[in-house]
Amino acid sequence: MDINKRIDGMTYAIREIVVNAREVEKEGHDVLKLNIGDPNKYDFDTPDFLKQALADAALGGNNYYGDSEGIPAVCEAIANREKKYKNIDIAPEQYLPTSGASEGMNMVFASLVGSGDNVVMPGPSYPLYISLTNFYGGSPREYRTIEEEGWQPDIDDIRSKVNENTKAIVVINPNNPTGALYPEKLLKEITDIAAENDVPIICDEIYDLIVFDKKFVSTASLADDVNFIVIGGLSKVYFAPGWRIGYMGFKGPDDEINKLKEACYKMARGRLSTNTPAQLALKTAMESDHSYLNDYLPKLKERAKFSFKRLNEIEGISVTEAHGAMYMFPKIELESYKGRDKQFVLDLLKEKHVLTVQGSGFGEQYGGDHFRIVFLPPMETLANAFDKLEDFCKSKK
Amino acid sequence: MDINKRIDGMTYAIREIVVNAREVEKEGHDVLKLNIGDPNKYDFDTPDFLKQALADAALGGNNYYGDSEGIPAVCEAIANREKKYKNIDIAPEQYLPTSGASEGMNMVFASLVGSGDNVVMPGPSYPLYISLTNFYGGSPREYRTIEEEGWQPDIDDIRSKVNENTKAIVVINPNNPTGALYPEKLLKEITDIAAENDVPIICDEIYDLIVFDKKFVSTASLADDVNFIVIGGLSKVYFAPGWRIGYMGFKGPDDEINKLKEACYKMARGRLSTNTPAQLALKTAMESDHSYLNDYLPKLKERAKFSFKRLNEIEGISVTEAHGAMYMFPKIELESYKGRDKQFVLDLLKEKHVLTVQGSGFGEQYGGDHFRIVFLPPMETLANAFDKLEDFCKSKK
Ligand SMILES: Cc1ncc(COP(=O)(O)O)c(C=O)c1O
Ligand SMILES: Cc1ncc(COP(=O)(O)O)c(C=O)c1O
Repeated sequence: MDINKRIDGMTYAIREIVVNAREVEKEGHDVLKLNIGDPNKYDFDTPDFLKQALADAALGGNNYYGDSEGIPAVCEAIANREKKYKNIDIAPEQYLPTSGASEGMNMVFASLVGSGDNVVMPGPSYPLYISLTNFYGGSPREYRTIEEEGWQPDIDDIRSKVNENTKAIVVINPNNPTGALYPEKLLKEITDIAAENDVPIICDEIYDLIVFDKKFVSTASLADDVNFIVIGGLSKVYFAPGWRIGYMGFKGPDDEINKLKEACYKMARGRLSTNTPAQLALKTAMESDHSYLNDYLPKLKERAKFSFKRLNEIEGISVTEAHGAMYMFPKIELESYKGRDKQFVLDLLKEKHVLTVQGSGFGEQYGGDHFRIVFLPPMETLANAFDKLEDFCKSKK
Repeated sequence: MDINKRIDGMTYAIREIVVNAREVEKEGHDVLKLNIGDPNKYDFDTPDFLKQALADAALGGNNYYGDSEGIPAVCEAIANREKKYKNIDIAPEQYLPTSGASEGMNMVFASLVGSGDNVVMPGPSYPLYISLTNFYGGSPREYRTIEEEGWQPDIDDIRSKVNENTKAIVVINPNNPTGALYPEKLLKEITDIAAENDVPIICDEIYDLIVFDKKFVSTASLADDVNFIVIGGLSKVYFAPGWRIGYMGFKGPDDEINKLKEACYKMARGRLSTNTPAQLALKTAMESDHSYLNDYLPKLKERAKFSFKRLNEIEGISVTEAHGAMYMFPKIELESYKGRDKQFVLDLLKEKHVLTVQGSGFGEQYGGDHFRIVFLPPMETLANAFDKLEDFCKSKK
């Protein structure tokens, strides 16, 4: 049984490393998990009104296949939310609910990327962008994000990476894995590059309302002469990752963007529909006032601040501040692990039972010599994990 | 914006025709929908204990990302169910929960099919098998199923269609779109062909417990020297299509089949997890005694019998009996529509507001000159639709 080589492209370090953690657990150890961006694995929970919305939808009999293109009332709620919070002004039928943002990303890459094509994306990047590009036979081209400047994109590098085979530019803001938040001016410059080259921008804004001290601006709100695909969902801002529900918006100056929408519709019909109760809960989420964030955001911010401070105290580790999302991307400065971030992560797991993710899993070029942590765990867990990390680093000098 | 040509392969007539129906509805007409295999659109409903299981899972806080490879307790429940009802005896870790059977099918085709490969599948076929084969650059090779013999597979034709580029043989039993149920002897012959050619069989058994008068036998239970992928889910037998939850089982004589399982795991990790509350409801479903079928199956059987009788009374239409699933695949015998089944379906929709699906949407070669109906609607709706169909046929003689 020969497996098609496209599957080799489908790597996902964040989940693959879990296989190693299971081994350690089998030996009877508790593993401190700082690897997965799932707030519900820690002391965050889906807001009650959303749980109730899902339960009500199911108990109320909404268990049929939905329209492949999304339930119209749900699309309308998404459009209102994106207008209100992000100033993206497009019609409800420009939105497509998907089974997690992940499914939407797959539809877009299936539609745009083939052999000989490339996608310009941040380095480091959320791994699925790299994997999907490879899976569909294209080449990821990572643009530099500058660690010393808090992982801000290098505009000149973006410009140099776009060529005639570029099918899209990816912007992840707030950023996974770095926790960076991009200022409006910089985002505007990216839209200029897209306009000059007539390349669409994929705006992954799944963390849009998870920001701590600066204002979030949607890239898609900054230009009317560029094609945008905006990505969002319930996994992060709404603390319901297990429902696998997200959405995409298609915005453009003319009908061109609808070619992509129609292609995604074809993919959507092939899989019949997305989850109906989850879609109805998505509607409730989109209509919410997000007051639960008043409780969640300060907690997250405190943990981000603590992680920033504590990680920088550890000899052999340095890290930049996170202004949004749930992640930090510390640098490994130990001579003994130079070029070996995966080994660092595996040794830390085996010796100290602390699970992180190797930076090279987010792209070799800019991710190497780093690792990713989530700062979602409670303060005690974080403190405990960082103590162990410090011991570990001391022992490796 | 150029759309990759693989998207052209992703056609799905059952859902595309809905776009035409919406037009007719916009003109103010009620459309009698006999197009979609969604029992919940008619007078069937998800059993209450399953709705409650989904609600309880969400309210109980099970809203985290699940393991990519499936929640172990869920896999165990699937294994027990497949052993008990279908005599498929493999370990729980050979099962992978998926977002609908559709997602599982996508994973398998992504893993197996590339340019130059072919997949041998029934003609007519469930459209997604054709679409996925084309999407991944392969060629569908339809084997004849014999209408005069109640759409039973032509064994010699299967044998003639398998060659060195064949990546899998698909068996859909009970069958969509024909309602056929295959006898054990014939299934055994298919496993022999698979064994001789060392080709895996994809057993789509999503309708396994929806049979009316004959015994269902799982193809995967009939041989120990063949690699099988068994497909099931909650969309049909458990009347919960909107939850988008299904599963795949990987069975084989040795470790070879696990290459495919590992490839599917890679795809599974890329999409993080399937829906967690739906997975827990899947567990409840797998453990159920299916007593709700005591009510549902006789209803379905009565509708199948009525449809069989009534359709055959209509001049210009003939149909074979359905022994399982939810579908019949009548032949259009009107001279005026020879070679034009899509036009037949469009005219019937426009003139009589009855929505069916063109047979060629299930494969041109064997589906042409037919259309598919679902016999899910209540008797009055069916009677009404068939009266309109009769009027339509009379007017077209
Ligand atoms: C940047 C980014 N985009 C997309 C996703 C996928 O999210 P979903 O759960 O909606 O598939 C994630 C999940 O971690 C993410 O970090
Ligand atoms: C034969 C067959 N396989 C698979 C499916 C897909 O089912 P799911 O809803 O689990 O994706 C269907 C749906 O109609 C079907 O008829």
